[in-house]
Amino acid sequence: MKQPVAEADDAARALARQLLQLKHASLAYLDDEGPGISRIAFGLDAAGCPMTLVSGLAAHAVALRAHAPCAVMLGDPGGKGDPLTHPRLMLRAVAEFVEKDSQRDHWLKGHPKAALYIDFTDFAFVRLRPVSALLNGGFGKAWRLAPDDLL
Amino acid sequence: MKQPVAEADDAARALARQLLQLKHASLAYLDDEGPGISRIAFGLDAAGCPMTLVSGLAAHAVALRAHAPCAVMLGDPGGKGDPLTHPRLMLRAVAEFVEKDSQRDHWLKGHPKAALYIDFTDFAFVRLRPVSALLNGGFGKAWRLAPDDLL
Repeated sequence: MKQPVAEADDAARALARQLLQLKHASLAYLDDEGPGISRIAFGLDAAGCPMTLVSGLAAHAVALRAHAPCAVMLGDPGGKGDPLTHPRLMLRAVAEFVEKDSQRDHWLKGHPKAALYIDFTDFAFVRLRPVSALLNGGFGKAWRLAPDDLL
Repeated sequence: MKQPVAEADDAARALARQLLQLKHASLAYLDDEGPGISRIAFGLDAAGCPMTLVSGLAAHAVALRAHAPCAVMLGDPGGKGDPLTHPRLMLRAVAEFVEKDSQRDHWLKGHPKAALYIDFTDFAFVRLRPVSALLNGGFGKAWRLAPDDLL
């Protein structure tokens, strides 16, 4: 049988980096109820590490404080065709809460509308430091990427 | 402070049922590496229970066989506006693998393109039986729903 997951090549790295420019993502986390899922704001810190801005009231923020391993998916199905053929990047990651002032101005450059709530005291930045990545480009087209491939 | 999650009302139930008509979803699962996330095909069985058709080769299929608790998110960000203001439904669910012949014809009515691969021997149906649901309609608009609210 054909190996369904290939090693990263330049085309895969370029597509992954393009998906990392998206401003929102899906987050999988774990809490006492089991796996949970949320839509999150998404961006990169100044060093290119995935990051999100969360309300401390959100279930996923509470969960990430207690259990740092998580997963992130980037890539929206387009309006046409089979949604399973549209590319998406899946990261296994570890959450790290970050001191807010260090990221505030950088985040607002990419997410100007966040000015409406970024200064609420419960909002916090969380780095989602990649451990591994899988890029899926449609049926039978998948690549495994290392954290360095994403930079 | 205002309670951020309201009890379900008719408008919330109607929006949730509309999102359940979507043909794809995001799935959060758990395996030995921690939480994982995938895009999945999505539909309802004849009784209105969420279901997916998976390749047994997919990481999430392997994971769901070993660990049935999972979570599903439905609802795509539209092209305009803040993606966090677009409605999405999040289900906590339990995965149940289903005998294939019982669902094949029903699934193909809603997913005719699945005819290309539905008969591959590794493909299987998995019911994603809801345990609880959260409907998010944008900042500060969330409703808690019970499984019966989804039918």
